Amino acid sequence: MKTYKLALVGFGNVGQGFVQALQQKEETLAAQFGVAFKIVAINDMKMGSVYRPGGFLLDELLKAAATGDLSDLPAEANDWTVKQMIEGAGADALVEVSFTDLQSGEPAASFIRQALERGMHVVTTNKGPIALFYPELHELALGHGCMIGYEGTVMSGTPALALGQELLAAAGVQRLQGILNGTTNFILSKMDGGGSYQQALIEAQQLGYAEADPAGDVEGFDAAGKVVILANVLMGANIRMADVDRQGITKLTQADIQQAQSEGKRWKLIGTVERVNGVVKASVRPVKIALGHPLASVGGATNAITYSTELLGDVTLVGPGAGRLETGYALLNDLIAIHRKLG
Amino acid sequence: MKTYKLALVGFGNVGQGFVQALQQKEETLAAQFGVAFKIVAINDMKMGSVYRPGGFLLDELLKAAATGDLSDLPAEANDWTVKQMIEGAGADALVEVSFTDLQSGEPAASFIRQALERGMHVVTTNKGPIALFYPELHELALGHGCMIGYEGTVMSGTPALALGQELLAAAGVQRLQGILNGTTNFILSKMDGGGSYQQALIEAQQLGYAEADPAGDVEGFDAAGKVVILANVLMGANIRMADVDRQGITKLTQADIQQAQSEGKRWKLIGTVERVNGVVKASVRPVKIALGHPLASVGGATNAITYSTELLGDVTLVGPGAGRLETGYALLNDLIAIHRKLG
Repeated sequence: MKTYKLALVGFGNVGQGFVQALQQKEETLAAQFGVAFKIVAINDMKMGSVYRPGGFLLDELLKAAATGDLSDLPAEANDWTVKQMIEGAGADALVEVSFTDLQSGEPAASFIRQALERGMHVVTTNKGPIALFYPELHELALGHGCMIGYEGTVMSGTPALALGQELLAAAGVQRLQGILNGTTNFILSKMDGGGSYQQALIEAQQLGYAEADPAGDVEGFDAAGKVVILANVLMGANIRMADVDRQGITKLTQADIQQAQSEGKRWKLIGTVERVNGVVKASVRPVKIALGHPLASVGGATNAITYSTELLGDVTLVGPGAGRLETGYALLNDLIAIHRKLG
Repeated sequence: MKTYKLALVGFGNVGQGFVQALQQKEETLAAQFGVAFKIVAINDMKMGSVYRPGGFLLDELLKAAATGDLSDLPAEANDWTVKQMIEGAGADALVEVSFTDLQSGEPAASFIRQALERGMHVVTTNKGPIALFYPELHELALGHGCMIGYEGTVMSGTPALALGQELLAAAGVQRLQGILNGTTNFILSKMDGGGSYQQALIEAQQLGYAEADPAGDVEGFDAAGKVVILANVLMGANIRMADVDRQGITKLTQADIQQAQSEGKRWKLIGTVERVNGVVKASVRPVKIALGHPLASVGGATNAITYSTELLGDVTLVGPGAGRLETGYALLNDLIAIHRKLG
């Protein structure tokens, strides 16, 4: 049995989802993979910072999180910065689940660099650093004999990146088309049922799918970040956010929706990455998809990617694109992959 | 660069598709995975048997196959039985693509056992031996320090088994539901468009999807074989063909089709594997699937599986279920997986 010590940056929904996933799967992990994980440190912007070399019980962590404060937990240190934690906690892997910034990637990018430079593995669901700096971070990990896992940056725990990297690599992926943002897909599904864009947006906000300022979703920024990750991770490109030809869903009207229906089609916000004459092109824009296509029937907050390959033709993966436990699973699966490769 | 010597049993459509896939991907395999494959021997029931220690050119093999006769190829031996080939060819892996027999698994099962007992890896697309003897063959491989790959036995090259074994293992798969037979799905799609069962069957036979005696497909035997493989490989069961509660599509009428349509549903032949109170249950039968479900829109000869998991909810994989190059890719991907793990 190999035990990995973990340090967490961030203990919001995703961090707690990860701990829940660990808790549900503790026995399976030991029996099936011969691996155990011990959380020795957490640093959360709002809840505080704790370090205990012998590790915390998963249950006490979840209970403390429910109170919004970690500082009552018996700990050897409770005043560390993230930097001190990465230096001092003796963790084998950093679980980076702090907030996402698609412009700077900070502060997560700095935490990830610091950990990799110390030879710590990193697993993250944070789109910012991966969309902005994947080629650099990948090299950094290689150079320090450690690994970085980022499955949760696209389609949460649905293994969309690993499918492309591990199982379809030799098939020759030539194009990716995906429904990569659950909020916009929910809005379009509602409009398909007859509502206006404004009505659907308000419903998405009431359900907590869309933020008060919905621009990140409805203008396609979130999907563009994922498109950059897909391009750089699965197609060996080195593109940036600004290279994505991006258009959101805010201009789609009920008349457009009905027009598509009359053509046997359905509007979807589609992220596309395509190799054209050796150059990788990327876009996010509303596309009318024929009803027979596997992406057309992907409704609500579900996500999906169609991989068009040389040897296999089209392969489509459909699964959750968000969710606390679902995103927590991404981190767990990344850690298992690291264990399987290096453990 | 590591080079694996291969011996092939069978050089029909799948064997030739494998050689074509190798040919298309030779450069990628070297550059991306640092691996090369050299075919040193082939034994085909109809085309004869050849052995050349230095290996054959892929091109000369495909040309000889087009003539239906391998015996004109310059070779060191051209009279070996399969048994002699496995003993004498010095191959690192056996590519087993002879004909499928779901009753006995023979002669493929004997070839596979012989190879594994000699410590040769085996990759196969042959449902018979895997449906009938997977637990035994898996143990045999383990005991001899070699591996057996069988991705192509379900959904051809679409990586349905590896997705479950590698990427969803820790998510806790509780149920699998799949469209596992392209011929019946083609027939049902045609009936959905208004034809009778008889008309649709004749069209499937004219297109070469269905055999002159279509029982293997339309009575659900082929799907049942795949269900057994899914149960034993992905859910740790040890069930047999006779344990599958099997019903084909021959009794579905146009009236049934229309009834389903009026309910917003569509008939599909669904293979199901489910853990019920710790016991794995398996069935193949026509099921009315709601149109919003990812399996409902899978049309024609395409296949798909929905994996219902504890941590991720439902994940669906859609892709080709047959095809020369597609099935050839399954063998290639199995060999790459062996190289990645042991190479």
